[in-house]
Amino acid sequence: MAVLSRVNSSADVKHLSQSELDELAKELRSEIIRICALGGGHLASSLGAVELTVALHALFDSRSDRLVWDVGHQSYGHKILTGRKDLMDSIRKPGGLAGFTCTSESPDDALTVGHASTSLAAALGMALARDASQERDASQTPYHVVAIIGDGALTGGMALAALNQIGHSKPKMLIILNDNDMSISENVGALKHYMSSLQVQPWFQKVESSGRNRLWKPLVDFGSRAKQATRHFFDPASANPFHAMGVRYVGPIDGHNIEQLLYYLGHIKELEGPTMLHIVTKKGKGYKIAETDPIYWHGPPKFDMDKPVAASKGYTWSHAFGDAASELAKTDDRVWVITPAMREGSGLVDYSQNHPKRYLDVGIAEDVSVTTAAGLALRGEKPIVAIYSTFLQRAYDQVIHDVCLENLDVIFAIDRAGLVGGDGATHQGVFDLGYLRTVPNMSIAMPKDAREQRAMLKRALELGGPKAIRWPRGKVEKAPADPIDTWDDIAWGTWEILKEGKDAFIFALGPTLNYALEAARELPSVGVINARFIKPLDMPMLLELARHAKVFVVSEDHAREGGLGSAIAEALLDNDVYVPLRRLGLPDCFVPHGDPVEQHAQFGIDAQGIRTALEELGMLHGIGLLN
Amino acid sequence: MAVLSRVNSSADVKHLSQSELDELAKELRSEIIRICALGGGHLASSLGAVELTVALHALFDSRSDRLVWDVGHQSYGHKILTGRKDLMDSIRKPGGLAGFTCTSESPDDALTVGHASTSLAAALGMALARDASQERDASQTPYHVVAIIGDGALTGGMALAALNQIGHSKPKMLIILNDNDMSISENVGALKHYMSSLQVQPWFQKVESSGRNRLWKPLVDFGSRAKQATRHFFDPASANPFHAMGVRYVGPIDGHNIEQLLYYLGHIKELEGPTMLHIVTKKGKGYKIAETDPIYWHGPPKFDMDKPVAASKGYTWSHAFGDAASELAKTDDRVWVITPAMREGSGLVDYSQNHPKRYLDVGIAEDVSVTTAAGLALRGEKPIVAIYSTFLQRAYDQVIHDVCLENLDVIFAIDRAGLVGGDGATHQGVFDLGYLRTVPNMSIAMPKDAREQRAMLKRALELGGPKAIRWPRGKVEKAPADPIDTWDDIAWGTWEILKEGKDAFIFALGPTLNYALEAARELPSVGVINARFIKPLDMPMLLELARHAKVFVVSEDHAREGGLGSAIAEALLDNDVYVPLRRLGLPDCFVPHGDPVEQHAQFGIDAQGIRTALEELGMLHGIGLLN
Repeated sequence: MAVLSRVNSSADVKHLSQSELDELAKELRSEIIRICALGGGHLASSLGAVELTVALHALFDSRSDRLVWDVGHQSYGHKILTGRKDLMDSIRKPGGLAGFTCTSESPDDALTVGHASTSLAAALGMALARDASQERDASQTPYHVVAIIGDGALTGGMALAALNQIGHSKPKMLIILNDNDMSISENVGALKHYMSSLQVQPWFQKVESSGRNRLWKPLVDFGSRAKQATRHFFDPASANPFHAMGVRYVGPIDGHNIEQLLYYLGHIKELEGPTMLHIVTKKGKGYKIAETDPIYWHGPPKFDMDKPVAASKGYTWSHAFGDAASELAKTDDRVWVITPAMREGSGLVDYSQNHPKRYLDVGIAEDVSVTTAAGLALRGEKPIVAIYSTFLQRAYDQVIHDVCLENLDVIFAIDRAGLVGGDGATHQGVFDLGYLRTVPNMSIAMPKDAREQRAMLKRALELGGPKAIRWPRGKVEKAPADPIDTWDDIAWGTWEILKEGKDAFIFALGPTLNYALEAARELPSVGVINARFIKPLDMPMLLELARHAKVFVVSEDHAREGGLGSAIAEALLDNDVYVPLRRLGLPDCFVPHGDPVEQHAQFGIDAQGIRTALEELGMLHGIGLLN
Repeated sequence: MAVLSRVNSSADVKHLSQSELDELAKELRSEIIRICALGGGHLASSLGAVELTVALHALFDSRSDRLVWDVGHQSYGHKILTGRKDLMDSIRKPGGLAGFTCTSESPDDALTVGHASTSLAAALGMALARDASQERDASQTPYHVVAIIGDGALTGGMALAALNQIGHSKPKMLIILNDNDMSISENVGALKHYMSSLQVQPWFQKVESSGRNRLWKPLVDFGSRAKQATRHFFDPASANPFHAMGVRYVGPIDGHNIEQLLYYLGHIKELEGPTMLHIVTKKGKGYKIAETDPIYWHGPPKFDMDKPVAASKGYTWSHAFGDAASELAKTDDRVWVITPAMREGSGLVDYSQNHPKRYLDVGIAEDVSVTTAAGLALRGEKPIVAIYSTFLQRAYDQVIHDVCLENLDVIFAIDRAGLVGGDGATHQGVFDLGYLRTVPNMSIAMPKDAREQRAMLKRALELGGPKAIRWPRGKVEKAPADPIDTWDDIAWGTWEILKEGKDAFIFALGPTLNYALEAARELPSVGVINARFIKPLDMPMLLELARHAKVFVVSEDHAREGGLGSAIAEALLDNDVYVPLRRLGLPDCFVPHGDPVEQHAQFGIDAQGIRTALEELGMLHGIGLLN
C-alpha cells in the first residue's frame, strides 16, 4: 500500500500525481476486498465507486466540502481515505465503524444515512445553507456540495421530486449519477431504459474504446459557453429529463477512468447552478466474481478472498415467506407479491420465477408499492406487499390513506422487524407496532415460527382487510412441506399459552419468546404467552389472566413506546384492571449496529432481563416468583 | 338545466350531441358555482375541469371504466354527472357527500382520496389487475383506466416514481396531465417551467388562436403509425421527460375545447400501452373572480354568487404561527420556513414576503420538505417545516431517518392537528401523537392559545433538537403585539394547572381544554391540567397528582391509541402507580367529514363526555365527584 500508507485525510489525496491516483485506486480496491472478505460488507457498490472516490477526494476536501453519498453503502473507499483505514476491520461490527456514512463517526461524513434517495434533498438543503451563510457573511469561504446517487436510488420518488426542486432553486451543486444499472436487485423503471439508451449512442462507444486519449477534450469549450457546450456535445438527445428538470446534464462518461473524471469534475466544479454528471460504472468492478454476480456480492458475509464462493445464508424467515407466498399464489390466482427493490432480501427469487406475472418490483419506491397494491386490491386482486419494517416507514401515509381508509385486502409482509444487526440505526425495525397500531382497520401479527407464519399468511388472505404480519431478520427452521390445505388453522386475534402459570405471566412475541421460556423454566408459577396478535389483542385471555395473576412482564424487540407493552398497559387500564406490569423493550434512543442477541441482553429484554423484572416485581409485591 | 336535467349517469352523457355537450359544460359550470356559493367548496379546480369531465364521460363509462381523479377535489362535475346532482348541496357537510371522490359513496368513484399524487400508482394497480383478470378469463370485457393528475400533484415524488414504473410495466392506460400551472399555492419545481415552455411553442399558439377549426387534424395520422405520429407532430421537443419515462406523450391541447378533447381522447383511447395527454386549462375557468385569484377561490367558504368577494376567514392558528415565525426570523437570521405547497393554508403569505430568502416552497413533496430541512440544519440553519398533521404522515421516514436520528434542530410546525371538518377522513390530523411519540429524540407540544404557541416556538428554537408543535385548524385569539423578548418563557416539558383539584384530574390539550374546564366548573374536587407537552410528559407533576388523586380522565382530539392517554397509562404503570383512568379520544375508526364540535360530542371527548367519565369512575370507585 505504497500510496495509501501516505493518505490519512482527504487533503493528502490532493498531493498525488495522476499515476499515484491510479495506484491509490488499485490499493483501495484490494483493501475493500480484504475488509469485506474478513467480515462481510457492502462490497460490490464500494468497488464500483473506487475511481470516483479517488477523483472526488483529489478535487474536493471532505472536511470543508460536503460529499453526500446516497445510502452510504458505497462509502468504504471514502472511509479509508478519510482517516479511518485502521478501523475498517471493525466495520458493521459491535462498537465498530458504521456500514454507512455517519456524521457522528467523522466530520468527513456529510450525512447519517442508510435509506435510499435522500441525498438530493439533503444536499439541496446544504447548498441553500451555504448560500445563506455567504449572504450573511461574505468572508466565509463557500464550499462545494456534491451528491452521489445511484441509478437505483433515482427510482425513488423523493429523489425525483428533489431534482425537480433543485432545478427550480438552482443552487450551485454537483450531482453525480452513478449509473451501474444495478442497485440491490436488478433495477427497474423506465428511466433506467432511458439511461441505458444514452450509453449506446455511437459517440459514447467511441470514447469508451478510446480509453484515456482525451478524445473528448476538443469537443468542449468550457467557460462562458459551458452550458451550451454541454448541452450540445454531451447530451445525445436534444432534451432529456434532467434538462427538463432544470439541471445541466453532462455525460455519460466512464466512471472508472480517473483522468476523465478529474477532467470533467474539474471543469464542472466551477459552473454556477446545479449540474449532473452521469458516469457509468460497473458494480463489483475489478473483482471478477462480484462483477459476474453483483446481486450476491452486493453485501456478502465474510468469504475467502482467494477462493470466493457465494455461501448459503441458510434458511431464513424471508425464504419461509417466499415459499409460503409461492404456495398461496399457486392456490389462489389473485395473489400478487409486490416489492420495492428487495427481491433477494425478501426471499422472493423463487416466487418471482414461479409467478412472474403476479410479481412486481417497483424499484426503490415504497410509496408506489403500497398504493399500487391498493389499486390491485380495489379490482379484486390480493396483493402482498413484501417490505422491510424500516422501509414501510416510507409508505406510512399510503398505508393509512390508500389501504386502511378503504379497508382493502392488502397484506403487509414485514421483514426485518426488530433489531437487524450490522445495518444499524437506520435499519432497525423497531417502530412498526407503534405506528401501525393506531391506524384503523389495521391488524398486526407476529409468528413464532415458519409454521405460524404461513398459517397467518393463509388466514390473512381468507379474512381480507389490511393485515400486517412481521418477522425478524435471520434464520428459521423450515416448516414441513405439507400441502396447503393441511397448514395450521389459526384463529385471528388469539394468543397461545406456551407455558402455564399462576402468579406471573410473561407476554412475548417473535424472538423474545425463547427468552421468556428460558426465564420461566423451572418456575412453576410463571407462565409464558405467545402474544402473537398485537392488534387485536386477545382480550378474553388477557382479562382472564389478569383476574388471577399478580404481575405481568412484557418483553418485545421493539421500542417500549407504542409496542405490545403499551397496548397491554392501555387495555388493562381501560378495563379498570390493575396488574403490576414491567414493559421490557428498547429504550427511547436509536440503537446502533451490533449483535442483536447482545443488544437484547444490554437492554434487558433477554431471559436474564425478564428474570430481573420478575424478581423486582416479586419483591415489590411480596411474591416469591423465582423459587 | 335543459341538458343536465336529462343526465343521471355517465351512460346518459354518451347520447348527447356536440352542442348538447357544450351546453352541458355550461350548465355544469353554473351548478358548481351555485353549490360552492351555497356552502363553500373546491370551486376553482372543479371549474377548470368542466370540459374535461364532460369529454371523459362522453367517451368512458365511470361504472365500468376507472376514472382516477388525483386528490379528487376537482370532481364536483363528475359527481353531478354520476347520479349525485340532487345531493350536491350537502357536499362537505355532516352526513353529506364527501368533498373528494370516495368509493363508498358511489361505484362511479374509482378511489377514495384526498392526498395528492396517488392517482398514478393506484391506476397502475388497476390496469395491472384488469390485464390479469383478462388473462384468467378472456371473456371479461376490458375496461379503461384513466388517471387525471394536475401539474401540482406531479411535483410529488410518488407520482414521478409511479410514472417511471408505468413506463416500465407499460399497461394500457391513459394519463391526463391537467396543466393549470397552479395547484393550491403557486406551483414550483423545474418541471413546471418545462411544461410552460411547451405551451409557448408557436405551433401551440396557432392552434389555440384557431379555436375549433380543427387545424390539427390533418397533422395526425392515427392508426398504425400512431406512436410515431404523436411523437413527431405533437411533441415540440424531440424528447421529453415523459418520453424518457417510457410514456407516450401527446399535447399540449386546449383543455376547454370539448371537441378537441373528444377528438384526441377518442383516438388515444384505443392505443396500447400508457399514453399521457397534456391538456392546458385555467383554474376557475368561466368565473371571472376565480380566474383572477385562483388561490383564494381554490376552496372558498360560502359566498354571494352575484357579488362574490373574498371573505376574511378570521385570525387563525395558522396566521398566529406565520406571525410568530416572521418575528423569530427577524430576530434570528438562521430561521427558515419550508412548506410543501401550503403557503396560504399554513399562514405563510406574510412570512414569504417578509423573508423571501428564508422561505422555501418545495411543491407537494412532503418528504423533500423534511430532508431539505435536515440538510439546512446540518449546516447550522434553523428550519421550521410548516406542515399539516395529515401530510406529515407522508414524511414519516424522513422525520425518523433524516432528522431525529441526527438529532437535528428542526421544528415541525404541525397545523390541522385533530379533526378538521369538511375535508374529512383523508385529512384528519389524529395520528401524529402516536407516530411521533415513539421516535427517539423527538419532543412534542401542543399550545392552548397563540401566546403559548409562540412561546413554544421561541423556546424550541433556543433548545434545538427535533421539536414538534401542533395546533388545530381554526380561529384563535391574536396574541398581543409584544416585542419578542417579552414573550412568555416556557419551561419545556412542564404542564400547567388550569384549575386546582383534589380527587380527580382531567388532562387535556388544545381544543379539549375548554371542554375540561367546562366539565370541572363548580366541581371543587376536580382539577384541570393543560398537558401541553406530550413528550416528555411532566412526570414530576403526574406522579405528584397520582399520589393524591383517586381518578384521572384524559381527553384529547386524537386517536385513543397512541396519544396522550396512552402515554399517561404507560407512565403510571411504569411507576407502579395505579390510578383508575379513562382515556377519552377518537375511536379506532376513520372519522368522516363533519363539524368537529359535533364530532367531539359524538365521541365523548367534550364536556358532557368528560362528565360522564367522571361520573362512571366516581360510581365505580365510590367517590362522589359531581357534587
